Amino acid sequence: MTRDSSLTRARLLDAAFAEFAAYGVAGARVDRIAESAGANKRLIYVYFGNKEQLFDEVLQRAMAEGAESVPFDVDDLPGYAGAIFDHLVERPELMRLRLWRQLERPSVTSLEPEAFRRKSAEVGAAQQRGEVAQGMAPDDLLTMVLAVAQAWFLAAEGDGADTSGNRTWAKERLAMHRAAVVEAVRRISEPKGAAA
Amino acid sequence: MTRDSSLTRARLLDAAFAEFAAYGVAGARVDRIAESAGANKRLIYVYFGNKEQLFDEVLQRAMAEGAESVPFDVDDLPGYAGAIFDHLVERPELMRLRLWRQLERPSVTSLEPEAFRRKSAEVGAAQQRGEVAQGMAPDDLLTMVLAVAQAWFLAAEGDGADTSGNRTWAKERLAMHRAAVVEAVRRISEPKGAAA
Repeated sequence: MTRDSSLTRARLLDAAFAEFAAYGVAGARVDRIAESAGANKRLIYVYFGNKEQLFDEVLQRAMAEGAESVPFDVDDLPGYAGAIFDHLVERPELMRLRLWRQLERPSVTSLEPEAFRRKSAEVGAAQQRGEVAQGMAPDDLLTMVLAVAQAWFLAAEGDGADTSGNRTWAKERLAMHRAAVVEAVRRISEPKGAAA
Repeated sequence: MTRDSSLTRARLLDAAFAEFAAYGVAGARVDRIAESAGANKRLIYVYFGNKEQLFDEVLQRAMAEGAESVPFDVDDLPGYAGAIFDHLVERPELMRLRLWRQLERPSVTSLEPEAFRRKSAEVGAAQQRGEVAQGMAPDDLLTMVLAVAQAWFLAAEGDGADTSGNRTWAKERLAMHRAAVVEAVRRISEPKGAAA
């Protein structure tokens, strides 16, 4: 691949990220992606295959970036949840991308299940060492930790701070919710008898 | 409204529920809804206004039904979370409807914020009585409880049980996850010093 073509590829992926986050898979327009990237639409098919494959590529890259920015830390699950929260505050489009995927591409197998299993195995080992609370299967405990970290972004019931639906919150409110995420995960994951 | 027209209206709402759960707002086809309800498409506009208004009506009815099936119980938050979980297992389309709403109709104000505030006020009062754990604002605690109850249905990372993406799980796996939901909410909400 030439330098030019890899730059074009990168521009297409960025444009596709924005388009998919806004409109989802069915709603995304390949023409708009090409135009926004300043590239020929034909190149999308050449580089990525069809629209669904482009979505999968965009999602996989976003998840890989996320995993790099927020490394899993079984020794500090509350801190890990807080870091996921921070990452989603910075990149709210990531959450949208994941929701579209859940609705429109549920059968896609990607790197995620494998990453999940690896984390879950670490949780299981930490439970056996007595460093993470027992009484829940590792998969379940990990699922709860991730759900708590993302709770704020899925609070469709309303979060009490903003009923207009536009997801901008005061810094202090975010800091407060972040502290609640960390505290909730501590309560869920801290082994009995640990110092309060 | 005549008996006939209210029957037609009910059939249209049922058909719209299925259509919106499958395709979302942008993807839903008014023609398909009318055909599936055996009604004239024009009646949709007469009864409900446009497609977006029909979606809002469908969502609001679904949420109201949910609230009726799963009454809020501040004295038993773990049981409440378990009941939400059961309701979503029975009606997975509800979760899809809520996700579409979050992606496509984020600015809709509905009954939800008010219902949320009412529950949150009950949580706050229970915290003051020392019956629910403190250290988190009532809104945050309630948001966590709801997130934990729904965690399983949003486990896009993979739940370890099924990587095919089709959301059917073994009964035993569901029962196990339900127990984990109840246990996680107990840990989050139980006041310090309560009997373990």
